[in-house]
Amino acid sequence: MLATHAAPRGLLSVPPGGWPAAFEAEFGGWLAAHPGVPTLMAGMVGSRQGWAEAPYAACPAGLSDIAQHLLWLQPGRLAIVPGLCCHAAGVPDVMRGEETQVFGALQALPLPSAAAAPHTLVLPGTHSKWVQVDGGRITRFQTHMTGEAYALLRQQSILARMLPADDGDLDVEAFDAGVAQAQQPGGLLHHLFSVRTLALFDRASGPALASRLSGLLIGEELRAQALPAGQPVTVLASAALAPRYQRALAACGHPVRLAPDDATWRGLLAVARVAGTLSA
Amino acid sequence: MLATHAAPRGLLSVPPGGWPAAFEAEFGGWLAAHPGVPTLMAGMVGSRQGWAEAPYAACPAGLSDIAQHLLWLQPGRLAIVPGLCCHAAGVPDVMRGEETQVFGALQALPLPSAAAAPHTLVLPGTHSKWVQVDGGRITRFQTHMTGEAYALLRQQSILARMLPADDGDLDVEAFDAGVAQAQQPGGLLHHLFSVRTLALFDRASGPALASRLSGLLIGEELRAQALPAGQPVTVLASAALAPRYQRALAACGHPVRLAPDDATWRGLLAVARVAGTLSA
Repeated sequence: MLATHAAPRGLLSVPPGGWPAAFEAEFGGWLAAHPGVPTLMAGMVGSRQGWAEAPYAACPAGLSDIAQHLLWLQPGRLAIVPGLCCHAAGVPDVMRGEETQVFGALQALPLPSAAAAPHTLVLPGTHSKWVQVDGGRITRFQTHMTGEAYALLRQQSILARMLPADDGDLDVEAFDAGVAQAQQPGGLLHHLFSVRTLALFDRASGPALASRLSGLLIGEELRAQALPAGQPVTVLASAALAPRYQRALAACGHPVRLAPDDATWRGLLAVARVAGTLSA
Repeated sequence: MLATHAAPRGLLSVPPGGWPAAFEAEFGGWLAAHPGVPTLMAGMVGSRQGWAEAPYAACPAGLSDIAQHLLWLQPGRLAIVPGLCCHAAGVPDVMRGEETQVFGALQALPLPSAAAAPHTLVLPGTHSKWVQVDGGRITRFQTHMTGEAYALLRQQSILARMLPADDGDLDVEAFDAGVAQAQQPGGLLHHLFSVRTLALFDRASGPALASRLSGLLIGEELRAQALPAGQPVTVLASAALAPRYQRALAACGHPVRLAPDDATWRGLLAVARVAGTLSA
């Protein structure tokens, strides 16, 4: 990797038709300095509200599948990597961008000798993705609205009154208690209410309550996976979330591998190579 | 019942110290017309933010327990019915007002001959209560943040973009599909995302999505109860919610009894009789 550039410009900050201008504003300098270099884009840029809608590739899908389905905006020069869709019991699920991160992580962290054995990865976030990989292909995945639920409950629900303005440092004891509680019968909608009652009974306060809420939600995500005991999980997460998932997975008995934070770039490079847009 | 009076004045609309004035404004006319009539109050009026904090009575608790623990503001004249608390696995839960409704429902709908057998009641709402009654006493209960979660997801989450401004009439097919989906593996945080993906794939839209979201949340509430097949459930609900719970419970194989809508008044009367504040 030679350089990176980030800008706080989410999907909704770009007006309709404004994508070419936004791209030029952010990356025009690079393109002028390196004429002819092919460009791949992944993520919500390929959604219905993005630059152009790149139809989802269907699971199971490997690197070659998404490389074959690149949406070329400028032939040989500028393309969007398609997202993936899968169906379980007739209900669709989708991802955009995470497929590239998963394939990048697999470049950096090749699976052990039994590469054909199914392996689980989690990409935590606003909409966490749990991904099953088998033989180098993504066979199925699930989205969980964990991060969004945390933000809504944290800021807008009756629980918000009990919580401090800032989360503060993670209270690991309270977080672990939340993860453990989520494994008990009762269900998420019930367990969440304990953030209120523990405060009412002066059993917890401040940052401990925010950590407990986080543990309840991440613990619910793990509970719902019903992973076989001992199954290893690869975590692709930000520095803020990785320790929480690592801790929760370990508490539930799962060995954890942390993926490197350059998985996205490794994934884009791998797609480019398979697509033949790079000779090296 | 001789008369009722309702006013849209929730807990947060009464300023600190403003409870006597609010009571006088709403009910002063009645008190002047019927001097000496004892008054019982139930619900959030007895919370820490209410008129005065009435300490929770601990489960198991029957009519006589809450009658013994009335918080008298004016001896013999004005009292607050205490709420209940219970603990499960060290985590507290609380109710205020629902205990009075439950005892009122049991006045109107006596349990069948085997009155000592445990019976389940549900009081749906912002914070739904699932209540176990045994031998005329509330033995334990669980709060579920179902109504609040619906409002937050409906209005504030990414799902809100897919939903119409008004829920419209219940789409029973979409509601039933949501209830059924909630019984499948995956967990609530995952199932919720289907409201988005079904819209993305043009599989549902408008009121059907709102009904599906409602079915997912109510279905999750039922799933979490893990009720024995065939166990009857008594529903104490508003006219808006009763048909949804009735439908969801029936789909999960539970016979349903609907409690009358005067359960609160029947409950207050029963408490007054047991407390001896009424001779009749």
